[in-house]
Amino acid sequence: MKFKLKGIIKLSKEVPEAEKDIEEFLKEAEKDILRRGVPEGQEKEASHVKSWELTGDTLKLEMESGRRVRAHDGLLRLKKPLGQLLGPRYRVGVRGVKVEDYTLEMDAPGVSEIPGLRELPFVEDADISQGIIRVRFQPLDESELRKHVVDRVVKHALSLVESSQDLTTRVTRATPGEIVARSEKREFFFDGDPTEEAMRLGWVKKFPGRGQWFYGPQITALHRALEEFLIERIVKPLGFVECLFPKLIPLDVMNRMRYLEGLPEGMYYCSAPSRDPQTFEEFKNELIINREVPMDLLKRGLKDPGYVIAPAQCEPFYQFLSHEVVNLDDLPIKFFDRSGWTYRWEAGGAKGLDRVHEFQRIELVWLASPRDTEEIRDRTVELSYDAADELELEWYTEVGDDPFYLEGRRVEERGIEFPDVPKYEMRLSLPGQEKGVAVVSANVHGTHFIEGFSIREARNMNIWTGCTGIGLSRWIYGFLAQKGFDTEKWPEFIRERVDGVEAPRIVTWPGKD
Amino acid sequence: MKFKLKGIIKLSKEVPEAEKDIEEFLKEAEKDILRRGVPEGQEKEASHVKSWELTGDTLKLEMESGRRVRAHDGLLRLKKPLGQLLGPRYRVGVRGVKVEDYTLEMDAPGVSEIPGLRELPFVEDADISQGIIRVRFQPLDESELRKHVVDRVVKHALSLVESSQDLTTRVTRATPGEIVARSEKREFFFDGDPTEEAMRLGWVKKFPGRGQWFYGPQITALHRALEEFLIERIVKPLGFVECLFPKLIPLDVMNRMRYLEGLPEGMYYCSAPSRDPQTFEEFKNELIINREVPMDLLKRGLKDPGYVIAPAQCEPFYQFLSHEVVNLDDLPIKFFDRSGWTYRWEAGGAKGLDRVHEFQRIELVWLASPRDTEEIRDRTVELSYDAADELELEWYTEVGDDPFYLEGRRVEERGIEFPDVPKYEMRLSLPGQEKGVAVVSANVHGTHFIEGFSIREARNMNIWTGCTGIGLSRWIYGFLAQKGFDTEKWPEFIRERVDGVEAPRIVTWPGKD
Repeated sequence: MKFKLKGIIKLSKEVPEAEKDIEEFLKEAEKDILRRGVPEGQEKEASHVKSWELTGDTLKLEMESGRRVRAHDGLLRLKKPLGQLLGPRYRVGVRGVKVEDYTLEMDAPGVSEIPGLRELPFVEDADISQGIIRVRFQPLDESELRKHVVDRVVKHALSLVESSQDLTTRVTRATPGEIVARSEKREFFFDGDPTEEAMRLGWVKKFPGRGQWFYGPQITALHRALEEFLIERIVKPLGFVECLFPKLIPLDVMNRMRYLEGLPEGMYYCSAPSRDPQTFEEFKNELIINREVPMDLLKRGLKDPGYVIAPAQCEPFYQFLSHEVVNLDDLPIKFFDRSGWTYRWEAGGAKGLDRVHEFQRIELVWLASPRDTEEIRDRTVELSYDAADELELEWYTEVGDDPFYLEGRRVEERGIEFPDVPKYEMRLSLPGQEKGVAVVSANVHGTHFIEGFSIREARNMNIWTGCTGIGLSRWIYGFLAQKGFDTEKWPEFIRERVDGVEAPRIVTWPGKD
Repeated sequence: MKFKLKGIIKLSKEVPEAEKDIEEFLKEAEKDILRRGVPEGQEKEASHVKSWELTGDTLKLEMESGRRVRAHDGLLRLKKPLGQLLGPRYRVGVRGVKVEDYTLEMDAPGVSEIPGLRELPFVEDADISQGIIRVRFQPLDESELRKHVVDRVVKHALSLVESSQDLTTRVTRATPGEIVARSEKREFFFDGDPTEEAMRLGWVKKFPGRGQWFYGPQITALHRALEEFLIERIVKPLGFVECLFPKLIPLDVMNRMRYLEGLPEGMYYCSAPSRDPQTFEEFKNELIINREVPMDLLKRGLKDPGYVIAPAQCEPFYQFLSHEVVNLDDLPIKFFDRSGWTYRWEAGGAKGLDRVHEFQRIELVWLASPRDTEEIRDRTVELSYDAADELELEWYTEVGDDPFYLEGRRVEERGIEFPDVPKYEMRLSLPGQEKGVAVVSANVHGTHFIEGFSIREARNMNIWTGCTGIGLSRWIYGFLAQKGFDTEKWPEFIRERVDGVEAPRIVTWPGKD
């Protein structure tokens, strides 16, 4: 990586007599100010002043760097000490710093396209040729430099380089899609479409919202039976303690999770009403007269979107710990939540009970040492195997690909601590289909959330987070797909919870759809 | 109520020779077409043709009416039969109907202001004097007439008349605020602020969203203990069956509930992303560079608000039954839901655990004969008394005021079936405060939702709905306010569920807030 910069440091008046001192200062700077924090052996990656010239009240500089103390950082570093030198001696102040010409070159082997790079803010031009990405920036003033706009463009360029490899393979030792465990073969008792059968029998009814269902008495009884069983077998033995996690998540929290830059098109956004009685009065009047929702008035009465409905369920845990200090000796902290629905917007459309927008999940989330974090995650998966076996279900587990917390990370430059296998995904087999339905997703995030939410260990020991989602709605789908709707074929301890539960009698339903 | 109209019926050509037939037709119409559906004894409330004139191809009419077959409805009724008469005989068609001048007068004793009336769509002018509201409409074409814009203005005017009386008193036999039951006096064990104490002890932590909390292990244990107990004591004995109700409610459903015209400023609105990968790509790039959410891009990427997050919790029940036919013999249908959070936006701001935006509730909702509906409601309240007594809590119950389903109704003209007491509200006493915290709200809606959702009984027998909300978050607040945080003072069967549950150890929390 190579940064080349032409910039200026503006002084408060002309001081030709200071030329000698400035020369000395810049020479010293290359040994000290511009080298601080650079690991041994990487000195040639740091900022270097290639040439300089004092013209009137303006110090013009040409600087270059590799990836350590990037040229613009070097320029910023010079400002204050230069002022401290010139101020007392010549009664001159440093007024500001500006970069007039700035280019970046980055090795990009195998990269042929640079989508989005040219369109980024502050980018004047960008191209790729012969395996090198070249970016030219627009002129940048001091405040823009301090806001790290350059570094973020660099991140984006790096992400283009890295996305030409598979992410999980690159940062971890796991191979996505690799199957790491598998149950014995089971007999299936059903070969229909579980969604259609559930509708036909009146276990569910379509709700008008996309990917939403009304879950009737029988499927709810099955839901509660499985929920209790899975808590008993997976959650309780591992000592997770129940909390009630909020499900309306401020955008700022999603931003700190790096979820907004990962999958912003996959969530529902929420707006609170503004304090505007006049508009709502008009809204009501229009509505009463026309019976149609006056959308313009509604939008006028609402604030900007300020929330999403929780897509991940574990968001509040990191927020809960944010800016707190923990002691490694007091860890792990192990919480679980099953307090309500979570939501994902599926662009591809949602039809069946397997791919819903609104779903129930038992979410386990924990904070621990790296070693414990991985161990806890592995235990949640192992106990899930046992639970599925006890339910006489056929399952397999694979290494997951591209979890969103790596998505966020791949645009980072600095080294991050990653788990060996960030994600396991356990699936229940679906008769006649190659791919099963994912029912357990077990993740180790390394330091992703620790950093994003500024969670600290008292003695700066390493701490990690992990989470395991037990997708109840998915368990039900897989269960019904393998065992069908005849409770005689179900394990006794589940059957007894559902037998005798009946849908209401309605003349016109089910059966007319 | 008096309607006066000057309108025209346009013919496809001049037919002076038809004058005689038209005279005959209009005379007959006053006995037949314009009288249909008018109850005996109310004939003089119906439409009457005061004068008419055939000028070229235009039949000009002056019509008047009281509240039955309002003048414009009368005019519309004439169109088709007139065409059937003239068509074969004179080869002339009826081209359209228009009202050029239309006024409404309505008795409004005691009304001195008519807020909003003048601003309604299609209203030219409106005033109130000497106890009479006068409205003059703008010219109205046939499609506007058929869309009932006049009737909706009438409704609004009626609502102004009616709101000068108390609503519940007017439509029912109950007096809001009247206390109808009360427990024995209890000893209180706490005189602090439950919210502050819960924060101090680390039972809850403030979540950044307004009116939201992170509920830690101890308060969650209390929550689950109370939930199970209340289900055991109230829900199960009455034979309610659990379902899972969606919590993301399409605006159309809220509209049919008449909730949107009742309290539109009290909800969170949700938008789904649109299918616009380009915008979201830009959004991600901006976000990566600037780290701040680019709000304009986000708004561009979202659809119009299409949902609210459930404020009432019972919404999906009416939707589930919508357009279905039930048989009275198969009723009641009794469902309950406890599947997640519901939400209200409180304009006045929310601070404590008693007045939150995000809360848990057990919602019971049923469909039955009017008599059974009231009986079931009363039983839910009685069993709530017993449960509170068993918890050694002090409580009282009052008649609630202004439920939103009456709010919707008060702008209706036609007679609606109302329960004697639409709403009971049971409250737990708060030490040192006059007003307790409402923990059970028990409602009978009459035919409000039956009509709004077109639910039918096979032989057109009367059916009603009712719902009882058991506000878990509120029970917890009242429980803690009366008993405090020392579990020694709690009933044994609750204490044993909470004792031993501990908050995690965190160096910096609780105690620093």
